[in-house]
Amino acid sequence: MFKYEVLKVCKQTGARIGRLTTPHGVIETPVFMPVGTMASVKALSPEELKEIGAQIILSNTYHLYLRPGEEIIKKAGGLHKFMNWDRPILTDSGGFQVFSLSTLRQVTDEGVLFNSFLDGSRHTLTPEKSIAIQQALGSDIIMAFDECTAAGADYHKSKTALDRTISWLDRCYKVQNNDHQMLFPIIQGNVYKDLRIESVERTLPYARCGIAVGGLSVGEEKPVMYEMLDTLRPYYPENMPRYLMGVGSADCIVEAVLRGIDMLDCVLPTRIARNGTAMTHRGDITIRNAQYKEDFLPVEEGCDCYCCKNYSRAYVRHLINTDEIFGGRLLSIHNIRFLTKLVTEIKQAIWEDRLLDFRNEFIEKYNIR
Amino acid sequence: MFKYEVLKVCKQTGARIGRLTTPHGVIETPVFMPVGTMASVKALSPEELKEIGAQIILSNTYHLYLRPGEEIIKKAGGLHKFMNWDRPILTDSGGFQVFSLSTLRQVTDEGVLFNSFLDGSRHTLTPEKSIAIQQALGSDIIMAFDECTAAGADYHKSKTALDRTISWLDRCYKVQNNDHQMLFPIIQGNVYKDLRIESVERTLPYARCGIAVGGLSVGEEKPVMYEMLDTLRPYYPENMPRYLMGVGSADCIVEAVLRGIDMLDCVLPTRIARNGTAMTHRGDITIRNAQYKEDFLPVEEGCDCYCCKNYSRAYVRHLINTDEIFGGRLLSIHNIRFLTKLVTEIKQAIWEDRLLDFRNEFIEKYNIR
Repeated sequence: MFKYEVLKVCKQTGARIGRLTTPHGVIETPVFMPVGTMASVKALSPEELKEIGAQIILSNTYHLYLRPGEEIIKKAGGLHKFMNWDRPILTDSGGFQVFSLSTLRQVTDEGVLFNSFLDGSRHTLTPEKSIAIQQALGSDIIMAFDECTAAGADYHKSKTALDRTISWLDRCYKVQNNDHQMLFPIIQGNVYKDLRIESVERTLPYARCGIAVGGLSVGEEKPVMYEMLDTLRPYYPENMPRYLMGVGSADCIVEAVLRGIDMLDCVLPTRIARNGTAMTHRGDITIRNAQYKEDFLPVEEGCDCYCCKNYSRAYVRHLINTDEIFGGRLLSIHNIRFLTKLVTEIKQAIWEDRLLDFRNEFIEKYNIR
Repeated sequence: MFKYEVLKVCKQTGARIGRLTTPHGVIETPVFMPVGTMASVKALSPEELKEIGAQIILSNTYHLYLRPGEEIIKKAGGLHKFMNWDRPILTDSGGFQVFSLSTLRQVTDEGVLFNSFLDGSRHTLTPEKSIAIQQALGSDIIMAFDECTAAGADYHKSKTALDRTISWLDRCYKVQNNDHQMLFPIIQGNVYKDLRIESVERTLPYARCGIAVGGLSVGEEKPVMYEMLDTLRPYYPENMPRYLMGVGSADCIVEAVLRGIDMLDCVLPTRIARNGTAMTHRGDITIRNAQYKEDFLPVEEGCDCYCCKNYSRAYVRHLINTDEIFGGRLLSIHNIRFLTKLVTEIKQAIWEDRLLDFRNEFIEKYNIR
């Protein structure tokens, strides 16, 4: 049911344009995936997401396991039906959240015993359980349960997590037995080049329809992330998409696609929207600032989104400053649209074999202030 | 520019169907007006409001005066353009908010000196200033600046407020000098029948295109409110709409229209939506309750709103329980749609000269639990 075709490779950079076929439709890559942690991309409707060009959204196993519980979603007919989204969905494995959100976690080779971030109740996640939850959710792309180390983890810790991730990966594949969900393994190894190479080499045998890069964008400097992507580059398989997890700033998206990445996700555009930050080609702007008080221009001139076509910076600023929900909604629309348009611009540059030039032009303008 | 025609009077009740013409279009009465306090009906877009049948919305002079300030809205081209709403807007005068939200207020015959609920800063509102602000906002229907007494205010206090309201009304008319905004005077008198009669009689000479009933639904029992409406009934002019301020529960809407009211507004449908309460023909239901955990029916079966057509109680409950903004948005759509449909049902009963029967049937079902 899954298929990935490369339509074009940029002669200047090797970046790709591709088509990934899933049970809920075709995704054109490169693609930015908005995040709907709780089975809702915060403040937005599925119709709005489609209008701004979202091809696939991401949802979170950890959160949905805790609330409402995967059994309820299964009874509802699966996540697509539950949330009224008929395009592809990717679910993460819960691995990252177990490490970033839970306290008092205890990691063994078996799995992770953790306290819920909600009420402290004790739960266990194992590779088998993570896959079972994702099977109940019915997402199109499911992620292997991995151990993600924090930024700054030492070599030994990172190596141990890598070994465990590979052993868990093996267990994930043993229980993933349907053909309508595509399992992506995750490369770990923190910021250690040799560990990254070891991780990708040991992961490759498991990669059938996609491969992910995890454990980046967790606090390290951007050049370090780019270095890791450069390190991994020669090892990726050609016949499947490569997904860089948790990256959503415009500059990082451009730099990542330039380095062979096809898929990315992040809460960034919606999270900063609710705080009153708008993404633009000249970098982020803080719309709540006094300078926009009487500014009746759209958030970004020339933008085709619903927010920019109908509302002014002054109005959006007013909504954000008075905690009106509609303000976060408008900026979420704008920010996601900004990223989907950015990806379209990137694609155009790939078609024209000039992604390196595009990157240089884009970054110069983006860092202008 | 304004015109009000009565199209039908219910033989059973005297309730009316009418058409009010404003510079931003025709309003069919009876009408329920959703409230957009801060120049936004919380969580909803203008397009959603139109889809669910909102003909006119209300916005708040007091709040917009404090943030962003009426001068900014004037520079934006007026409130309609600022908030992207091209149908009629009604603004209240700030009178009610000065009394309900501000601390340390000092009322004199001149006006009200009050502390902002935001930062304690000192401000003054007078009849002249309230009208000037509403003129800057450019709303279609503007309200007279009145003194609204609290539930339980004694006779003397209520009488003093009534006298002051009439004297302020006179000052409002002296400064309202354009023909594209329609000024509605407000009847006060608390729960004292003779004061209500005195108020309506002294208000009538000022009423040109509409008349409002204020100071009800502020904490008194419902039968007391109905009694006041019955008391006022014989005094209303026939050739203009009567607006009952701040009423939005389904039973009160039915009872008020039955008593000759043509327009109503309230924050209720959107406020309780954000708390997880859905309005239905069988009374309000608390969607966050555990009983809806695995309930995959729509919020109200047979409802034609976007929420009910696409989502289940279980999903809406999940969103509300996880503080997802989209939950409040969905229930706001449902609740406003419920009220606009209720008004349509009321109209049908008026056309059929059976509003009393409708009321009895409706209330029986509504109070079923």
